[in-house]
Amino acid sequence: MGIITLTTDFGLQDAYVAAMKGAILSINPNVRLLDVSHQVEPQNIQQAAFLLGEASPYFPADTIHLAVVDPGVGSGRRGIILATPAGIFIGPDNGIFSYVLSPYLPKSNSDLLPAEGLLKLDIPRGVEAFQLTNPAFWLKAVSATFHGRDIFAPAAAYISLGTPLRDFGPRLDWINAFHLPCPETAPDGTITGHVVYADHFGNLVTDITPQMLPSGKPVGLEILGRTIHGLCQNYTQASGLLAVIGSSGRLEIALQGGSAAGLLSARPGDCFRLIIPAVARE
Amino acid sequence: MGIITLTTDFGLQDAYVAAMKGAILSINPNVRLLDVSHQVEPQNIQQAAFLLGEASPYFPADTIHLAVVDPGVGSGRRGIILATPAGIFIGPDNGIFSYVLSPYLPKSNSDLLPAEGLLKLDIPRGVEAFQLTNPAFWLKAVSATFHGRDIFAPAAAYISLGTPLRDFGPRLDWINAFHLPCPETAPDGTITGHVVYADHFGNLVTDITPQMLPSGKPVGLEILGRTIHGLCQNYTQASGLLAVIGSSGRLEIALQGGSAAGLLSARPGDCFRLIIPAVARE
Amino acid sequence: MGIITLTTDFGLQDAYVAAMKGAILSINPNVRLLDVSHQVEPQNIQQAAFLLGEASPYFPADTIHLAVVDPGVGSGRRGIILATPAGIFIGPDNGIFSYVLSPYLPKSNSDLLPAEGLLKLDIPRGVEAFQLTNPAFWLKAVSATFHGRDIFAPAAAYISLGTPLRDFGPRLDWINAFHLPCPETAPDGTITGHVVYADHFGNLVTDITPQMLPSGKPVGLEILGRTIHGLCQNYTQASGLLAVIGSSGRLEIALQGGSAAGLLSARPGDCFRLIIPAVARE
Repeated sequence: MGIITLTTDFGLQDAYVAAMKGAILSINPNVRLLDVSHQVEPQNIQQAAFLLGEASPYFPADTIHLAVVDPGVGSGRRGIILATPAGIFIGPDNGIFSYVLSPYLPKSNSDLLPAEGLLKLDIPRGVEAFQLTNPAFWLKAVSATFHGRDIFAPAAAYISLGTPLRDFGPRLDWINAFHLPCPETAPDGTITGHVVYADHFGNLVTDITPQMLPSGKPVGLEILGRTIHGLCQNYTQASGLLAVIGSSGRLEIALQGGSAAGLLSARPGDCFRLIIPAVARE
Repeated sequence: MGIITLTTDFGLQDAYVAAMKGAILSINPNVRLLDVSHQVEPQNIQQAAFLLGEASPYFPADTIHLAVVDPGVGSGRRGIILATPAGIFIGPDNGIFSYVLSPYLPKSNSDLLPAEGLLKLDIPRGVEAFQLTNPAFWLKAVSATFHGRDIFAPAAAYISLGTPLRDFGPRLDWINAFHLPCPETAPDGTITGHVVYADHFGNLVTDITPQMLPSGKPVGLEILGRTIHGLCQNYTQASGLLAVIGSSGRLEIALQGGSAAGLLSARPGDCFRLIIPAVARE
Repeated sequence: MGIITLTTDFGLQDAYVAAMKGAILSINPNVRLLDVSHQVEPQNIQQAAFLLGEASPYFPADTIHLAVVDPGVGSGRRGIILATPAGIFIGPDNGIFSYVLSPYLPKSNSDLLPAEGLLKLDIPRGVEAFQLTNPAFWLKAVSATFHGRDIFAPAAAYISLGTPLRDFGPRLDWINAFHLPCPETAPDGTITGHVVYADHFGNLVTDITPQMLPSGKPVGLEILGRTIHGLCQNYTQASGLLAVIGSSGRLEIALQGGSAAGLLSARPGDCFRLIIPAVARE
């Protein structure tokens, strides 16, 4: 039948998500529709990019992922299709597919915070990109402000019916992507990493993987002026702030039965560095 | 398979929406279920009516739309089925289908605000209405406070299975509808319109269509004591408050990267007039 | 095709729910997925238990209900399958299935508040329970913090494909359940009941059934220092606080067009007693 997922900043109050789904089902009434999130903060492309990177690996590889956080709608920004070995992605060319493309992105240095800057990424081997320029696959009336409904949703529906990607418009050589921050180990052993996401529970997801940690167990970690000692196996092993390898396979800062983000006054979307000093690991 | 959409003020915290869906799937396990919105403000029939009017045109014409914002549940208010060329609608007879019926409604004058008053609408040609009085199509135990689950959801399920509408109860001659406000052009050229909805982004949707605007471009617009100059093509063309033709094909007031409703201290559900003075268009 | 419902405290902002659904669809792409609620308060097992008890009776009896409010994830707590005549339930063994099991639970006295304490429940006749210990049915990489995605979701998917329950791990003799509070009638006729849930509208659901009320109509009821007179048939029959038999078949405290919880400064999740004095019923 085919699966289409949706990721937007439209919220759940309005009729926008339903209009997109209606537009899809009017073209392919048999496709499965799944929500990733519609509660991306308005215009927060970075957050949507992160969520797509987290959810998409768990779906079948032929899933079509529709992503619409699109403050530049109606301006010159391009609408694109991106076909990767892990799924087909449709949305604006504004960096929203950066985490999906992270295996192909150059490693940036640790001075970058997650939200900083776009780069032009040459389409890597094994990936294809096309621009959505063929009006034959748009709704008849295209608004200036809602390409999610009028262009992206119909594209997803027609792809789910088997329409070849080259029919939608010209092949692209490059697309836009974020510079993703990269944790770094200094010569003295100090690791500088970043909080890249704060979730609903107030857990702070970082970009540090267990492979970076000597013997898998840091004994000291500095974050927003606080120090955390040791690495826990789960959320129940400490009563204050704790560090744990979370469900995305990266170091996570949590607070048992509470919100680490709340305790640290970090807002969702805040990005900041955390440091694992070399001395603390001895 | 058939599609049933749901629009309610039940929120997403409780089990009410799931109970409705379970009741439907217990009768027709193969029907598709789609949410329009469950975050209508409690008891805000007007808002639900607007959302149904926005979403339903994008669905296939044989879609069944279930709408339950029903403060009068258990009192004398009628439960109805409304069959239109654009879909079948089920819910309480309290005005919730007003925007769906807007082509058939008398044009009210510009002194009306969107929320004011109900009228009795004779069922127009091409539309049929029936009252839900036949207990054969209700759940066995009908509560006094949740006809959405006990009467409306089963009706939608049985209709999706092909049950003739006349089996549910007597044909109706009239139903209730809101007076919908109507923008008006005064002899001197001044246009008085209304904000009819504030969305999740804080964009203010009005009832003014581009056809009303001379040469499609107002050069001045007054709203809550502020003046907006010119008409933008999209959200990126101005840094302050801007006017744009939005995705519902009507004039919309927005703020790039922010909330026009927030800036103007307008709450979702607020209704107010906006004026396009004739002199400003010269 | 089979139906799987989901009840979690994951919220709708993050990618966690989508990752669970992706994990399910990667195993059984044809199963139906339905949300009960993802807005359970973080770590509020009691609330999830109540919602499951409300929603599950309305689904077909072969529905699989996945419930993940799991603060003890990664610790020693067991993951379980519970097969009952009213559906198959999957989740942590932390009391989350207490309301589903309420017909089998011993009646506690009225001094208990809803959130107090766990008991070991011997598996009753007609019910089966199994522990999820067989890694053949887990995702390849199991995180320490997200068994919802890595163990429970795959179990639901394999069960929907017909995998026998005994293949997932050893049969269990007992599971954990909450002491559920029980309304009590004193020798003098005074009824002591409990508010067990506050819904989105601010309606307060109690554990008092109409059968407990003499002639079905209390004439006085004390709650948080207020007195309510009489029993209404629906929400429109009184202008202040009112008592009504709600959609779950129990006494409910409501406020027409407003929030009883707000008026009484009761927060969702608050549990407290209400008293129907004998004298008031004379």
